[in-house]
Amino acid sequence: MLKYPQGLNKQGKTFSEKTSEKKIVHNAAKSSLNMIKSKPAVKFGKRGMNFEAEINATNDYYLAHDIAVIHKKPTPIQIVKVDYPKRSRAKITEAYFRQASTTDYSGVYQGRYIDFEAKETHQKTSFPLKNFHEHQIVHMKKVIEQKGIAFVLLHFASLDETYYLPSENLIHFYHEKNGLKSIPLDYIKKHAYPLSSNQIPRIPYLEIVNKLCEVN
Amino acid sequence: MLKYPQGLNKQGKTFSEKTSEKKIVHNAAKSSLNMIKSKPAVKFGKRGMNFEAEINATNDYYLAHDIAVIHKKPTPIQIVKVDYPKRSRAKITEAYFRQASTTDYSGVYQGRYIDFEAKETHQKTSFPLKNFHEHQIVHMKKVIEQKGIAFVLLHFASLDETYYLPSENLIHFYHEKNGLKSIPLDYIKKHAYPLSSNQIPRIPYLEIVNKLCEVN
Repeated sequence: MLKYPQGLNKQGKTFSEKTSEKKIVHNAAKSSLNMIKSKPAVKFGKRGMNFEAEINATNDYYLAHDIAVIHKKPTPIQIVKVDYPKRSRAKITEAYFRQASTTDYSGVYQGRYIDFEAKETHQKTSFPLKNFHEHQIVHMKKVIEQKGIAFVLLHFASLDETYYLPSENLIHFYHEKNGLKSIPLDYIKKHAYPLSSNQIPRIPYLEIVNKLCEVN
Repeated sequence: MLKYPQGLNKQGKTFSEKTSEKKIVHNAAKSSLNMIKSKPAVKFGKRGMNFEAEINATNDYYLAHDIAVIHKKPTPIQIVKVDYPKRSRAKITEAYFRQASTTDYSGVYQGRYIDFEAKETHQKTSFPLKNFHEHQIVHMKKVIEQKGIAFVLLHFASLDETYYLPSENLIHFYHEKNGLKSIPLDYIKKHAYPLSSNQIPRIPYLEIVNKLCEVN
């Protein structure tokens, strides 16, 4: 039984993020030095990459091609104890995960502020709302009030389908959910935009941003 | 002698951030549980707050008054080992500081993307360039290319003076520095905008953004 700090479980940390961290733990003994410099290995599954890796690859593509500057924020960690060994780098020996107060991704696209969260589920007919906590919903509202572009990328791993849902719709559903703990796929299909993954970049979410900004 | 990982020293982590982390270490034995939930104590010095705390307070003010949504990014940390004690929260037992690839602060103000770094020095006649590393300069360039608003807030602690220097000027100086390791205060006075700290919010940098955006 794993217990996460301060409801990190509820925070809805992405599955891939959790597995990445565990993978690091397992590999740590092999080569801790290399682990510091290299990114966690990418899993080669059904789609070739996991969802988070696909988004990161998409952001790398946008960055390399001067299309947008969008980064994943570091995981917030509360440091309690640090050792400073002689002739060696500072080593954190006690720390805990903290709850994120914002979303995971943000950046700039043609002057506009972009802000989104990416989540995946193994459910097939609905997307669990526990993936989004109150803080994040409040943050998205504030971003929209500031005329930022806010959305969530929802990945149904079992269906291999990904959707771009504007945060306006997520917020609306969140407040009108009437006890529902998940967003039905039907609601998502009605209010979200499907993203094809058979191209480069893998999750071309800026195409949807272009579409919506033309409409507005 | 303290050695920081991968040139974290050069990265120019703010003085206040370093002391906060050390303070946590010293206090950890007293009450590790409380430390997780509470923020590091604010030092009450000459100006009442340290520079980073003043910026955070300014951002809190902007957020609370629906003026802008601007946050400090978490410090990037590479996790190597995590323990999952039974009936307790996940505990990180081995981790290292990583070099930030972007700047510390970003967010949205009236639809525009805001991106900045805040640094302080105890020098009186110039600002050491080692506070900014190559990655950050490249990041600022890319943000400007995407029409984001990028700048640095430079605080001279001994003079109790704070300046808003557009990243364009920092980048220009960085490339034209001709061997100089610091930005002379004269250059800063010529190209930057002074910020008054005798008001609320304490570091009203959005006033300069307003001014520059009207000019553009």
